[in-house]
Amino acid sequence: MSVLKKILIANRGEIAVRIIRACKLQDITSVAVYSTADKQAMHVAMADESVCIGGPNPEDSYLNQQALIAAAQITHADAIHPGYGFLSENADFAKLCEEQNIKFIGPSSHVISIMGEKAAARETMIKAGVPVIPGTETDFLDEADAKKAALEIGYPVMLKASAGGGGKGMRVIESEKEFDTQFELAQAEAKAAFGDGHMYLEKFLAHPRHIEVQVAADQFGNAIAIGERDCSLQQRHQKVIEEAPASTLDEQTRQEMYDVSVKAAEDINYEGLGTMEFLFDGPGKFYFMEMNTRVQVEHPITELTADVDLVDLQIKIAQGEPIPFAEIDRHNFALECRINAKTAGKIDALHLPAGHGIRTDSALYQGYFVPANYDSMIAKVISYGSDRETAIKQMEAALDKTVIGGIKTNLDFLIQVIQEPDYRINHTDIGWLDKLAN
Amino acid sequence: MSVLKKILIANRGEIAVRIIRACKLQDITSVAVYSTADKQAMHVAMADESVCIGGPNPEDSYLNQQALIAAAQITHADAIHPGYGFLSENADFAKLCEEQNIKFIGPSSHVISIMGEKAAARETMIKAGVPVIPGTETDFLDEADAKKAALEIGYPVMLKASAGGGGKGMRVIESEKEFDTQFELAQAEAKAAFGDGHMYLEKFLAHPRHIEVQVAADQFGNAIAIGERDCSLQQRHQKVIEEAPASTLDEQTRQEMYDVSVKAAEDINYEGLGTMEFLFDGPGKFYFMEMNTRVQVEHPITELTADVDLVDLQIKIAQGEPIPFAEIDRHNFALECRINAKTAGKIDALHLPAGHGIRTDSALYQGYFVPANYDSMIAKVISYGSDRETAIKQMEAALDKTVIGGIKTNLDFLIQVIQEPDYRINHTDIGWLDKLAN
Repeated sequence: MSVLKKILIANRGEIAVRIIRACKLQDITSVAVYSTADKQAMHVAMADESVCIGGPNPEDSYLNQQALIAAAQITHADAIHPGYGFLSENADFAKLCEEQNIKFIGPSSHVISIMGEKAAARETMIKAGVPVIPGTETDFLDEADAKKAALEIGYPVMLKASAGGGGKGMRVIESEKEFDTQFELAQAEAKAAFGDGHMYLEKFLAHPRHIEVQVAADQFGNAIAIGERDCSLQQRHQKVIEEAPASTLDEQTRQEMYDVSVKAAEDINYEGLGTMEFLFDGPGKFYFMEMNTRVQVEHPITELTADVDLVDLQIKIAQGEPIPFAEIDRHNFALECRINAKTAGKIDALHLPAGHGIRTDSALYQGYFVPANYDSMIAKVISYGSDRETAIKQMEAALDKTVIGGIKTNLDFLIQVIQEPDYRINHTDIGWLDKLAN
Repeated sequence: MSVLKKILIANRGEIAVRIIRACKLQDITSVAVYSTADKQAMHVAMADESVCIGGPNPEDSYLNQQALIAAAQITHADAIHPGYGFLSENADFAKLCEEQNIKFIGPSSHVISIMGEKAAARETMIKAGVPVIPGTETDFLDEADAKKAALEIGYPVMLKASAGGGGKGMRVIESEKEFDTQFELAQAEAKAAFGDGHMYLEKFLAHPRHIEVQVAADQFGNAIAIGERDCSLQQRHQKVIEEAPASTLDEQTRQEMYDVSVKAAEDINYEGLGTMEFLFDGPGKFYFMEMNTRVQVEHPITELTADVDLVDLQIKIAQGEPIPFAEIDRHNFALECRINAKTAGKIDALHLPAGHGIRTDSALYQGYFVPANYDSMIAKVISYGSDRETAIKQMEAALDKTVIGGIKTNLDFLIQVIQEPDYRINHTDIGWLDKLAN
């Protein structure tokens, strides 16, 4: 028997549909909320109940905390699932739920607020023994002090202007013998640009990959790492293609990443699903970037390679159940391509891929009008197979026959990316896709 | 590098689409064939090349051996994949392919012809040590002889009139002490009905289940059992819902089934995918019915529980590759519901389920006209999860939101079936669904 009887889903689109499905599995009544622009949206049709919460602007509806709380109270929902985006990492909203005795499906507002502040998160992770990107804690005016710090960090280092931005006063320094010249040049540049010669140093990573660890933690202090994902393919910091497992990762580093992630989750009394994002710079070298305190867009690739229903698990944890497994049986390889709409409009022809080796998560249907008001991501095509090459080939065949008529999408770009020789041999890093797109 | 460069797919609908996808994985050019009724069919749009082979009647097109061979020769296809149904178990067609030096993807015409004749198949299996349903090899007129045979077979037995049919002269005999009375009554009935008192006996199975073993065998004499399926839910001998694994099967009997299936495949020099169909009557009691010498409609539930791409494997075997694994990692539970069209017509609204825990194999699209000329099965919805209950719940949620507008289908019936309490507790047998439907 479920402790939670009714869950309000404070979201829209494919993730709302995904959560409604998970509610059905546990015989939990689902409540959809929608803006006036989303009256015809699939999540509204699929939920057991639905409430209109405001106008098309996100501020008036999906970001409208009072309207969401009111909707939960009117429908007697005992929990709110925030999905991703919108209010999912908003500590104030989580706190408001706590105060109203509505279970916010995620960690406590306290944990969300710490992880939401870069400095506090970094400090917390350092305490928990998680490696962060080495850098100087203070600024330098003096070259000799800076040089000493560079030695401690280890070359190559990135020298940056404290007041900086836009690349001014920024230098990669490869070795100690270059230090003096480069420091003088950079500091002069900084002074000229910002009228301020304060400098700081960070470890320079030449070709890092974005690798993240999916963790889950229950209310009894048990945390587990469910697998990792490589999300290096990003355009302007937006993930475009994600893969699981991370094929460039050696087994020992993978285990270390899992271990520190689990320990950190336990140290901070984490609850629910969370993602520890790292920069990976080669065996043994990985550095914490941030922790996402909600379900990730790319969670399906973990589900397909770990045989875990992450949203189901998330709900179970929220109602006080312990994590029901101690080990993960990892197998297969999965990748996800995010299909983005470039224009709003009515879908007048639709063929989303399905069948062997393919999973598609979307809230599209033929005749649906894609509104301009929300995130452009309209469908996730996920392919899987015994290895990376097989999964990529499945994806190629699937995208090739995908039809989304009536609007412009990034479908052709995705096909181009997965056909790139460098992508096929996995010779990429977090800067690769931006270079390709330019 | 693939040995086969181009495969002609002698089929239509979802299985043609499935095979085209498998060809793409191996960079093999696919050739679709189609009847004039299928000009707008999805398999035609998806294949690399296509050839019209005749009129809407199956005899004029998909069963037209000469037209298919000609299409293969014109397009320089070096192999033909027959799918299921149509010519997939036609020994003459396989022989024609062999004579024309076109690789028929499946076993030799010789093996197909043996497995296609009930008596020859039974005899072959007995030789290979496969248990068949115990019965008398000869007919009886004399009661005493019959009684002796009944003892050998073991009670309960089914007494049947040799000239019989329609239940006349048929009796279930539970124990020896009933034998004399029942024999006299049945024989009198048989004489009255058919003018012939010859009788025979078979082991009576009260509530058998249909359990089948998926085997694969390569050209080097290696066979493997890839898992079993429970296909007891049938309507007039047509499978409606299939499950993997078979949850009523004990581990020892499962292993015995696997062992005899593998041994039989090796004994008869089997090649390709094959399915050994058994009646299962409780621990240790299973009896061979027939062997299907082609890919099965329900192959996806095995793919989802064994991490094997069966069609890919089938093609690899056909081009002389050895089976690339020695063990199967079985996990998860999967079930398939076959959606059948009850009327022809244009699909004017379509929402096929997708997303977590769901795979849908179909060749439908909105605007597609379902022709009246072919098999009524238009889509397969497959759900999977950690256990049977989870997979069924996924299915329930998926079917509930499936929309196939413009034609009549069995969708409501499928939902009714999976909601039956007896189905939920798996208290069914091969007669259960026919009783439910009446």
